[in-house]
Amino acid sequence: ELVDACSEVFSKREVAQVLAGKKLLITAGPTREELDPVRYITNHSSGKMGYALAEMAMAAGAQVTLVSGPVNISAPKGVELVRVGSALDMHQAVLSRAQSQDIFVAAAAVADYRPASRVDQKIKKTGDNDDMVIELVRNPDILADVAALANKPFCVGFAAETRDLEHYARGKLKRKKLDMICANLVSIPGQGFNVDTNALDVFWKDGGKSLSLASKQQLAVLLVELIAERMAVARQ
Amino acid sequence: ELVDACSEVFSKREVAQVLAGKKLLITAGPTREELDPVRYITNHSSGKMGYALAEMAMAAGAQVTLVSGPVNISAPKGVELVRVGSALDMHQAVLSRAQSQDIFVAAAAVADYRPASRVDQKIKKTGDNDDMVIELVRNPDILADVAALANKPFCVGFAAETRDLEHYARGKLKRKKLDMICANLVSIPGQGFNVDTNALDVFWKDGGKSLSLASKQQLAVLLVELIAERMAVARQ
Repeated sequence: ELVDACSEVFSKREVAQVLAGKKLLITAGPTREELDPVRYITNHSSGKMGYALAEMAMAAGAQVTLVSGPVNISAPKGVELVRVGSALDMHQAVLSRAQSQDIFVAAAAVADYRPASRVDQKIKKTGDNDDMVIELVRNPDILADVAALANKPFCVGFAAETRDLEHYARGKLKRKKLDMICANLVSIPGQGFNVDTNALDVFWKDGGKSLSLASKQQLAVLLVELIAERMAVARQ
Repeated sequence: ELVDACSEVFSKREVAQVLAGKKLLITAGPTREELDPVRYITNHSSGKMGYALAEMAMAAGAQVTLVSGPVNISAPKGVELVRVGSALDMHQAVLSRAQSQDIFVAAAAVADYRPASRVDQKIKKTGDNDDMVIELVRNPDILADVAALANKPFCVGFAAETRDLEHYARGKLKRKKLDMICANLVSIPGQGFNVDTNALDVFWKDGGKSLSLASKQQLAVLLVELIAERMAVARQ
């Protein structure tokens, strides 16, 4: 752990001020979609990748706002933290802030669906309901909505896939009109959810770059540099 | 926190050896019912009440086995920890151990239902599925199955309710053939899920006792004493 702490301090020191003066809005963690006061649907996102990115973007000089679902890690010092629960909460928190941002990074694992109705009392088991059906409705697409803004920030998405990585990632890039997408295969051990390491394939309209397995802190430094680089190219 | 730590040490010292020589099996935490490799249904249980009970039962002289769903707290030293994910996993872990136990405490918030089928690939959004339906099937009832064993241990259940506390708790006590049930209203702030305090109404066939708002550690001491007391009466 000491080695980890040292390498983190080292890598933070090494971050060039490539985002100096930029405002960066980032989402992280899972969302919770409540079925009743006790039960909810969620996912395995730990928030680690998003929190590392928030930290490194700040180290690179950005003014960072972090909109976070429920996680068990502390927000980096100096980052403005906005805590949310559901995808609808996160949508509201992001859209009310997105217009004034230079960069938007959607690192949260937002639930695609929410229960069609939330029951105010705990759903009771009775003898006659051995099976049950939950009706779900689609949540708004936070990233697509930000990318559709007139004065939109540079938009970076994430894609956690279990197969056909580039196919799904490029589809999402194009469909949502993103500037960049970071994709990973969550089915491979040591990558993605709830681990400290990750490997990412980053795609943009006319190119891409593979970032091989590394700590999420190290990947965050590389991603911040890549974002600054692609932003500069996009403005030419 | 120092005061908390001191009061914990104090209360552990104060615990009479009322469970000396007894074997106690306890479940704690939520379960996770997987929808696909990324998403799952769970609940707000932190595991704190169950972990406090495991700790205090051990302090009272019991040999403790703790079957725990995913939580963010450490198991008390000296307790045998068995980690599980789903309700089916927990059922298997408990039923394979229950026969040799003197006491079974079901403090876990076990999912009543699980998805009828788990999808091996992440479920993809497509344009034509704005709504979605999840079919759920009933999970086995761990506590009722233990209480139905020929040579059953002294069975203690929990009931987290949002209304009609005694009605639902006594119904559960009778229906599942329990020896004792600990009920709380999770709709009241400071009680139940994800907080450090709780208040419990404990019921048995011909009586009951209210344990007023206190730390989960303090309540655990009182509950351990109550379990020992009711076991002694049951054997007369």
